[in-house]
This record gives sequence, C-alpha cells and structure tokens, in this order.
Amino acid sequence: MKRTSVKVAIVGASGYSGEELVRLLLNHPHVDLVAVTSRQSAGQTVAQVFPKFASHPKSRTLRFTEPNAELLAKQADLVFLALPHGVAAEYAVPLLHAGSQIIDLSADFRLKNPAIYREFYGRDHPAPELLPKAIYGLPEIYRDPIRGAQLIASPGCYPTSILLPLLPLLRAGLVRPEAIIADSLSGVSGAGRKAEPDYLFCECHESVRPYAVPKHRHLSEIEEQLSLAAGVPVVIQFTPHLIPVNRGILTTLYLTPAEAAPTAEALARLGETISSCYACAYAREPFVRLLEGKALPDTKNVVGTNVVEIAWRLDPRTGRLLVLSAEDNIVKGASGQAVQSMNIMCGFPETTGLL
Amino acid sequence: MKRTSVKVAIVGASGYSGEELVRLLLNHPHVDLVAVTSRQSAGQTVAQVFPKFASHPKSRTLRFTEPNAELLAKQADLVFLALPHGVAAEYAVPLLHAGSQIIDLSADFRLKNPAIYREFYGRDHPAPELLPKAIYGLPEIYRDPIRGAQLIASPGCYPTSILLPLLPLLRAGLVRPEAIIADSLSGVSGAGRKAEPDYLFCECHESVRPYAVPKHRHLSEIEEQLSLAAGVPVVIQFTPHLIPVNRGILTTLYLTPAEAAPTAEALARLGETISSCYACAYAREPFVRLLEGKALPDTKNVVGTNVVEIAWRLDPRTGRLLVLSAEDNIVKGASGQAVQSMNIMCGFPETTGLL
Amino acid sequence: MKRTSVKVAIVGASGYSGEELVRLLLNHPHVDLVAVTSRQSAGQTVAQVFPKFASHPKSRTLRFTEPNAELLAKQADLVFLALPHGVAAEYAVPLLHAGSQIIDLSADFRLKNPAIYREFYGRDHPAPELLPKAIYGLPEIYRDPIRGAQLIASPGCYPTSILLPLLPLLRAGLVRPEAIIADSLSGVSGAGRKAEPDYLFCECHESVRPYAVPKHRHLSEIEEQLSLAAGVPVVIQFTPHLIPVNRGILTTLYLTPAEAAPTAEALARLGETISSCYACAYAREPFVRLLEGKALPDTKNVVGTNVVEIAWRLDPRTGRLLVLSAEDNIVKGASGQAVQSMNIMCGFPETTGLL
Amino acid sequence: MKRTSVKVAIVGASGYSGEELVRLLLNHPHVDLVAVTSRQSAGQTVAQVFPKFASHPKSRTLRFTEPNAELLAKQADLVFLALPHGVAAEYAVPLLHAGSQIIDLSADFRLKNPAIYREFYGRDHPAPELLPKAIYGLPEIYRDPIRGAQLIASPGCYPTSILLPLLPLLRAGLVRPEAIIADSLSGVSGAGRKAEPDYLFCECHESVRPYAVPKHRHLSEIEEQLSLAAGVPVVIQFTPHLIPVNRGILTTLYLTPAEAAPTAEALARLGETISSCYACAYAREPFVRLLEGKALPDTKNVVGTNVVEIAWRLDPRTGRLLVLSAEDNIVKGASGQAVQSMNIMCGFPETTGLL
Repeated sequence: MKRTSVKVAIVGASGYSGEELVRLLLNHPHVDLVAVTSRQSAGQTVAQVFPKFASHPKSRTLRFTEPNAELLAKQADLVFLALPHGVAAEYAVPLLHAGSQIIDLSADFRLKNPAIYREFYGRDHPAPELLPKAIYGLPEIYRDPIRGAQLIASPGCYPTSILLPLLPLLRAGLVRPEAIIADSLSGVSGAGRKAEPDYLFCECHESVRPYAVPKHRHLSEIEEQLSLAAGVPVVIQFTPHLIPVNRGILTTLYLTPAEAAPTAEALARLGETISSCYACAYAREPFVRLLEGKALPDTKNVVGTNVVEIAWRLDPRTGRLLVLSAEDNIVKGASGQAVQSMNIMCGFPETTGLL
Repeated sequence: MKRTSVKVAIVGASGYSGEELVRLLLNHPHVDLVAVTSRQSAGQTVAQVFPKFASHPKSRTLRFTEPNAELLAKQADLVFLALPHGVAAEYAVPLLHAGSQIIDLSADFRLKNPAIYREFYGRDHPAPELLPKAIYGLPEIYRDPIRGAQLIASPGCYPTSILLPLLPLLRAGLVRPEAIIADSLSGVSGAGRKAEPDYLFCECHESVRPYAVPKHRHLSEIEEQLSLAAGVPVVIQFTPHLIPVNRGILTTLYLTPAEAAPTAEALARLGETISSCYACAYAREPFVRLLEGKALPDTKNVVGTNVVEIAWRLDPRTGRLLVLSAEDNIVKGASGQAVQSMNIMCGFPETTGLL
Repeated sequence: MKRTSVKVAIVGASGYSGEELVRLLLNHPHVDLVAVTSRQSAGQTVAQVFPKFASHPKSRTLRFTEPNAELLAKQADLVFLALPHGVAAEYAVPLLHAGSQIIDLSADFRLKNPAIYREFYGRDHPAPELLPKAIYGLPEIYRDPIRGAQLIASPGCYPTSILLPLLPLLRAGLVRPEAIIADSLSGVSGAGRKAEPDYLFCECHESVRPYAVPKHRHLSEIEEQLSLAAGVPVVIQFTPHLIPVNRGILTTLYLTPAEAAPTAEALARLGETISSCYACAYAREPFVRLLEGKALPDTKNVVGTNVVEIAWRLDPRTGRLLVLSAEDNIVKGASGQAVQSMNIMCGFPETTGLL
Repeated sequence: MKRTSVKVAIVGASGYSGEELVRLLLNHPHVDLVAVTSRQSAGQTVAQVFPKFASHPKSRTLRFTEPNAELLAKQADLVFLALPHGVAAEYAVPLLHAGSQIIDLSADFRLKNPAIYREFYGRDHPAPELLPKAIYGLPEIYRDPIRGAQLIASPGCYPTSILLPLLPLLRAGLVRPEAIIADSLSGVSGAGRKAEPDYLFCECHESVRPYAVPKHRHLSEIEEQLSLAAGVPVVIQFTPHLIPVNRGILTTLYLTPAEAAPTAEALARLGETISSCYACAYAREPFVRLLEGKALPDTKNVVGTNVVEIAWRLDPRTGRLLVLSAEDNIVKGASGQAVQSMNIMCGFPETTGLL
C-alpha cells in the first residue's frame, strides 16, 4: 500500500522506546502523529514531558491522553504499541478488529508457539489466535511479509543484535546450530524507565553484572527464529550483562564452523565463504554495516542511529568463528526498527526519517 | 622467612598499579616503604603526585626518585616492579644478583617457555635464564612455592579472573579442556595511565568495545597455567572488552562438563560435585567469595578489595557450565595480589594490609 | 568518658549513609556492632544485603531487624539514626529517655529554632524540647561540646562542604557576611537509595542539572551556623547541582573580603591573613587538607575518605575571594563525620577507624 | 548573498568540533562538502576516521587531505577553521586574500583588542589587521552583521552559555555590571581530543574539579562582549569546572538587579520586567528555549541540539537574580552555532540542517 502520509498513534509513549518513537515520528516527513498516550502523563504536552523535543512545534500542541483503543482506531491508521508484554495484546485485539495496522514493540506477538510464550512469560498467551497473523518485524529478513502485514511483532533488542549477524550463517549452513553462544552487554535503558533500585544511578555506575542467567526471556524468540533459519530446533547459550551506558548493545557470538578448516588454505577459503555470505545478505542493506580490515564494533559508532555494525574473525588457534555486533538498543533494537517496518508497510522509502 | 618488618621499594610507582601499591604499602603495618621511583615524577613527594594519600604522614616526606637498581638493592629487601614488560626484566636481573626479593607485576616472568614469550610479546625474552626461578604469584594455587621464592611473577588481571574460577575444575577433570571460552569485560584502568586517544574520557564513556580479538597477549600465561592444571596442552577462546568503569573485571566462562548430565538427577549430582570442588578449593580462602543462592558477581561488590567473587550455573537446556567471576583489576588483578604474595614470602599473616 | 569498646546500633542501615556506617563500624577496633535495623531487609544478614562486606566475619552472623527503640536501648550504648527527617526524632525520644547516646544523621536536631524547622521542613518539629540538648556534630568546630554530648545532630553533606571552609573566615571577620554565594555540585548518592525516576541511571548519566533553586532545605542549618559565627543574621545564596558521579561534593564559594585590597601589596597582605586564618583553624586537623601551590580540590582525591580539601584564590581582577572545597558526601558529609563524633564522645583517638 | 548551494571545506576536521561540523555539513541540504583536512588523518576517508558517519555515501569517498590554503581557496567558497588558536590565523590570512569566506571556531578573531589577546593568550596577535573585519558569530545578537561578513569569529562554548542569558539583561540595564558571577560546568569534550593524562577516562570519571581559577582565557571575549552591551567596562568572576559527561555546559549566573526590589510587589514587577526582556529578546529565536514554570535547565535536554535552555529565578531572600543556562558545548557552543552563521551568510533559512 503506497501512501503520501499516514496518521499514527503511539500507545505507551512515556517509556524510553515510546520517547524514541515520538522523536522519530515527529521528524518523519510522511507521518502525522495524531495521538500519544500515557496514563501518568495524560493532559501534558509532549514538550512538557520531553523538554528536549520542545523545539518541534507540534510538541507544544500534542497532548498525552489516556489510552482508549476505540478512539485510537478512529484517529490513527497505524498504531505503535510500546507497552509491557501482556498489556500490549489487550490493545492489539480491538485495534486489529477495527482495522488498524499495529506495530507492537512488546514480546506479545513475537512467538508462533503459545506454549513457548507460557514457558517464558509465565502466563497463557492473551490472544493466541492472533499469533499466526503476526509478522516478526526484522526487515532485513522479513521485508516481503512486512509489506503486507497488519500486525508487526517488532523484535527485542537482544534478539536483533544476535539474529542479524547469525541468521545468514545459519541459513547458509556455515555454522553448527547446536554450538551457539551469545554473550551480550546492554546499556541501562534496556531496563526501561522503571523506578526500581537496581537501575538507580549509584547501583549501575561503576558496576558490571550478568543477570537472568541462564534463561533470559528473549531466548524464546531468538531460538524460534534460529530454528526457522536452521531447519532444526536450535537451543543456544545466552548471557546478558548490564553495563553503565545509557544506550547500546554489544554482542559477541562464539560459533563453530560446520566444517573444520584444519589448514591455512581451508581457513582462508572458509573466510571467503563467510565474507560472501555476509556481502550477499547485507551489502545493500542501509542499516547493516559490515566492518572491514581491523575495525571492530563499538557502540559509540551506532548510538542514535538505526545501524547494526558487524565484524567477524576466524580464530586459527581454536577453529572458532567469532562474530561481533553493535547496535543502539532503543533505535535498531526497538523504535528505529519499528519505524523501518512502518516505512515498508506504508510504501515509503525504507530509510525515511531514519538517516 | 619470618620478619617483623620489611623494607620495600616500588619501581614504576606512578602508574595505576604503582599507585595502588603505594596505597597498600603505606598502610601496611609491617612494611617500611623506603623508595618509590618514577622518571617523570622524580623529585616530587608522594603527596604531591597522589594528593589522595596526603593524609598519610610519610607521603609528605617520601620523594619519587629516578630508578637505580644498585641503590634500590641497598635500600630495600623487597622490590615491586610495576613497569612495562621488557623494562621490568632490566631491573630484575641486577636486583636478583644483589640478593633482593622481587615481585614483578609485568608479564616478563610469567611464562616458563621463552618461545611463547617471543610469540606473544614479539621479542626475545631479555633474561630467559631467570624463567625457571620465577614463581607465578597466584597464592590460592602456588602458596607453598611463593613462600620460598626470590622472584614472583604476579599474574595479569584477566588471567586472575579466569584462572581462579577455572583451575579447580580443570584439576578435578570436571570440564573439557578443549572447549573453554572466556569472555571478559574490563574497566579502563586496565589500559594503564597512558595518554593515548583511545582511553580519553570521551572515547570510552558511552562506549563498549571488544579489542585484541582473537589473540590477546594474556592468552599466553592463561594457557600455560591451564595446561599445567589439565596435564594436556590447552588452547582457549578469550575475548576482552573495554567498558566505561574505572575498575573491575567481569569474566563469563562457557564450559562443557567432562561428562554429560542428560537427566535431572545426573545434573543435580554434577552440581554437587562442582559445589564440592569449589568448596574444597576455596572455602577457607580469605580472598575468594563463593556466591550462594541467586547471587551473581557484580564488580561493584569487589572494587577496592582483594576479593574475587565466583558464581556458577549448570544450564539444563544446553548442558553447559557457566562460571562467572568479578574482581578489581588493580587490586586482586594486580597490586593487592602482589602484596598478598609479599605477605606470604615474608611470613606475615596473608591478609595483612588487605582487609 | 573513656571506654575501651562501645556497643553500637544503626537504625536505618540500608540506605547509603547506613551502608557506609556499617562499613566503618564493622572495621572499627573499639566498636561492637550489635544491631542494624531496616524494615525492608529485616531477617537478612549484613552479607546478604551488602555482599561487598561479606569478607567481614560478623557480616555473616549479624542480621537486620525491625527497628524497636526499647530493645535497641538495651542492646546498645550508642545508636546512630540514619533515617529520614521526622522519623529520626521518633526514635531519638525514647532512646534518650532510656539513656542511650544518639548520633542522628537526619536534619531533625540540627536547628536550634523550631520555627526555622517549620519553615524549611513544612511541619512542626516533633520534639522541640530536645533541640537545646543537641550538639551540631562538626568536630572541627564543636569538638568540646561533642565530648560530653548525649545527642549529636550530625551535619548535612552540603553544610559540611560549605561551613568548614567558611566558618574560620567569618569568625575572623575576614569576609562580608551579607555577600556569600555557595555553588555546590553533588554526586547522586546524596539523593539516597530512593527508587524515583529522577535518580535512574539513564536520567542522571550525561546530565547535569540544578535543583531546589533558590531555597534548598540545607540553607536552614547553614545559615544558623554562619549566623552564630558571624554574630549577625546571615542569609546566603546556595545553588545545588546534581552531577553524574556516585560520590563527592565540590563547593565553590564566592566571597567578598571585609576590607578591599586595592593594591598588590594590600592583596598580598590579605592573602597572608587568610593563609594564617586557615592554618590556625586547620593545620592540625587530621581531616582538613589545605591545598598548596597550584593545587585545586578534586573529588577523586577525597572519595572514600573523611577528608575535606580546601583551596582559595584572591582574584586581583575582581577583588573577590574564591574558596573551593571537596569532600565525599557520604563519608565526611555524613557517616565518616558521625563516626568522628562517636570517637570524640567515647574518648577514642579521633581518627580511629577513619584512616 | 542568496545561494542554492555552497562549497565548503573544514580545516582541522579530526577534533571534536571538526567531527561535529562534518556530521552537520554531510547532512546539510545546501552544502557540498568538498574538503576535510587533518595532518594525522590525511589519506583516510571520512568513514574510516569516523565510522559513525559511514552510512552517509559521501563519507566513503571524501578523503582527509593535508591542509593547503591555496588549494582550499580554489575548492571551497566557505571554509570552517577548527584549529587551535594561533594556527587558525595562519590559514585565515591567505584564504581571506583569496576571497574565501571564513568561519573560524578558534579564539583568534574573537577580540577587537590585540592587547587583550596578548594578555590572555600569551603572544602577539598573528594578524591584528583582520580584527576589525571579524564579526562575533553569535547570531541572536549579531544576525545583521553576520549576513554580510567575510570573516566570522564563532564564539567559545563558555561564552555562548554566559552571553546569551546575560546580554539582554545588561543591554536593558536590569543588572549591575560590576557584580556578575558565572559558575560553569563543562563536559570533557570541551578539552578537545588531546591525548593528555588529565583527560583520560580514569582521571575524569568519578571526578569533579575546578580549573583555570580565577582567570580562564574565555574571560577575554566574555568581558569584551559584556562591555559592549553594558556601555561600560565589565569585569566578571568566572569559574569553570570539569564534570564527567561527554557533552554539555551548565552555567549558573549570580546577578544583582540594578534596582533593589525590597517588597513583594517590587519583586513581582521586577519579575515581569525580566520576563518581558527575555521574551522580547528570544521568544522568536529558534535556538533559545525560555523555560517556564518549575522547569530548570538540564544538559540532557539539549545535548545533540543547537538549543540553549534558559531559566531564571529571583530570590526573595537575597534579592539576587539567578539565571541558569544549558547547551551542548560542541553544537550551540561550537559547530552548530558556526553552521547557524553559515546559514545566515549564505541566505539559507537559519535553522537549515540544525533541527
């Protein structure tokens, strides 16, 4: 569907992902941001809640409202849900019935299998009948289905940083699916704007710590996507760590090549194969940056952008393949990627408002 | 050798490890700090160079001098070398000949094999004849040989954070030596007080990045020690990352149990074995803290102390064993551990000046 | 009163000041820490709540309890109150009646005038009859009365950083009391361990902001103390700012000399007078460091210590006197200073447990 | 002069201001960035030196060159100089002779009086004959002269944060020019990308410190501008502090109203006058945000933008006027403001490329 402009609403606009959506959509040339909702900020203007956006004229007139699905369905063509899991589905159901397009940033529609949802989220899925309709909003992988989707399940921040570097290798059969380890480091914004002691400045500054070891919830969507790519069930090791930066995820993947490369020649050939695989997958992708030479990912090179940086190394000493990625957890890992999906759904150039 | 007090000198006292040695030794009840050297600070008092130590009376009288091995040998019984690799050996040779005891914080005497030194440090070892005399100063592992040593090679920061959690498992044959992955996160002080652009505040703050992938120099001593423990040559995967904290190393080890534990019962038994192994190794160690229950290591709990925190998890989904450790890279990872060795060498209670 | 050891309790030991008291008192050679209370942590050991103290044997046996004044009065000779204002007085009253010594870290007993308390704290003072008994616990100024006190009102963090550099000048009549400006920068721990959005990592990191402009509560005790020193009512300008460090207060005082120094000679003489004034007040104080030469205060030189750094400059261009101070807001600005008072009250050497 | 596009070069493009100029100009719709120079980066592409700009196609073709004034004059219509003081003038002289327009971000042309330059910069001015031609590039104050200028002296970061809030008050005679105090807090990027120990991560993190007390170089241009506005020579007190953020300056101005306001009514009237004064000066300025209600400036609301936030408070207790401002030191305090001047000079809408 090709449009010149689209009326958009954001439900749950006062968290970090919501705030970033507000920023991106206020500046998007084809978007008319018609509604932003937040229970706690209802009645205030966008400029009052987010002084940093006060230079945008609309921020001084657009006011936060209480979320109301019926009303939103009338106001907006497309609705972003930036809500906790479980809550998102409550809004998605009536909005979909009313014909709205939905881009959901929560985990509610990312899984095909409601049993996995139950296992990882500790409750029955609130709307299992919608799961088959949802498209996993990773544009580099699912661009075509996104085009025609009514319901996008925008990926989690860790999954994006793991899946983009891993899926091409797995699809090409280059790495062994049973030997995948993902070690990730995330900035504190990943925890959301929750007033919990663990995320106070003094508890995070000069602190580095693992958490949710060994079974973080994001494993569910990571493994489902990896299994689809590999054609076999994939179970991986994943360890998230909290580091004292506002934004950014750095992921280190430890992989085992599908075929050993015992000689220097074999290793060089394998290197060429990997290089081709990535070039084939991403050379023309505007938001994937394949690093060259000695360059390694650094979150400071992607913060504030929708770009994922990827580098890889074959270790001749161990035979392993290391793949490293960096992204902004709130942009490519959440709101930027969601806008990228919106651009595709609406027929706008995919990079609109994201460069 | 039992003494009531020891005359001590620090060569290269103006870097971060040197500074921490100054702090620990000024406050050590059995140490008489007789000399501190630094080319760039020569002539200044300790209080002038390190205002934070100015409350200690001696800091206002003790002056930095140019390093002079002959003189140091006369002044001090025991000399700490906090110098770059290569430079340390230049001072160690004459000091040893003059009968001084040496605790070297550089990499110069950590390896038994000069060929490995050449491979990793890119030059011939400056004093290979001394390598057999040097004791690797990891007190929890080499307490007895440290007692009688004249030359201690104090371990690197990353090696300490990897070896302490790994050696007991490897000695007990509980993990497969060919499948070891160590993923480490280090604060910026690990780079030393070098005025290089990469370590400027603005280049590190809001940045996370891997470096020295896949062959960091510390691999040489890590693998030598692991090989000694395993009884077979061990090659591991090791990825260091730079994170924006002053101090602290967090290491995540991905290990494969030597015997698979396919059932819940087998897993529980394996867990008990690991638990016993660690208790046996470290329950009475004053500077190793085995975490219990849900606790995971956090660098903020060890910064400023000589303690290593260790926790582990068996992942029933993957069968892997995760071990996590946290230490202060400048204390247990450098100067505190060096003082611990000194206490042992001099017959002082091992925790003296370190609690 | 001279003792060899004292039984001590801490009420409200789970906040940042309470935690620092626990650290200092666990390591104090003349203190037997008999009770720590905290509603939310009751039942847990000190080691469980503060893993970083787990190396101290007592941390594994001492358990947090619900606060109970009657019981505390029996257990302890001396009680530290690390509670919010208003709440502290509720515990102080019964404890004083039971004969306990009290060191209160809240604002409840810092003012002599209950009307000022009402003006700044928005409520009637809960125990105005106790105000005359309370001694303001700034040892450098009130050492003698502290010695015999039953109730110490330990100063606030900002007041300590302002009063110590200012009181000697004001007592000596060297600056005009009506022209005092104090501009202060505080680390986030000053806000306490409160789970409020304003103090989340992402809201403080890469942020600097003034707050409580122009009438911060600490003005009440600052002005009362300055008025006592000046012999006239003093009203000052005070602007606190929140900066992204865990600990530390840096205060810049803008002062006008009582007598103008229009010539270079007059200025030099005035400089000598100021220098003498400070030397006279603080040269022998163990916790005040008068900086010399070009040195200026830096919070990193005092963090973790009970020291205040002070430097001053006469500006020949403006005729003003600038005085700059740095302290650790939780040590000299709170818990360290409280322990310093305890040492005086109990007849211990004043620096015991604080070096 | 009205143009549709302008050929622009940046001399000294590898520092922080240069990097920000590159970012702004790569994305500016009317700018053709034809040359970027840097001795140390010559030969490398913009994408290699600044990976974060690699998504911009031109970054992969535009290469850094050695600076060459003659060549630059041929390539570019307008040249930004992002060089140290002293060095900037060396390039400005030949470029001006060749007819180029210059926007200089150094201090070389900010002063009218070469004697003041000598006093503050410790050397004779390298091109005093150009001083009368230079326009001080503060668009909100000098928009008209900027329009026709050939040489812009773009203001310093501290001066911008002080002059914008202060000039309207001084021009209106509302504050006493002899009683001005400016207390400023700056992020570390203000020191530039200089590899000096003082600006290493570990020396800045968990540190707050004043510097250049009491006579910072920026006083020269601040006082010259204030004197022009006041019509009398103005000497002020200015204290800069270094705080651990990458970007941002927060300035607190302590001012004395020209006429005392002894009653509540007088104070209210004065408040209205100040409010009108600011509204008159800045209500229509796109890059000045006058805060309302209880809002106070916070650097996190301006970082990455060309906006200055300003708030003020009359203190009824002291009679003083406090004015607080926040800006991004590298954008409004340097490169953004320079682009703003360029827009004016070239007849582009003033906010082009800056929103």
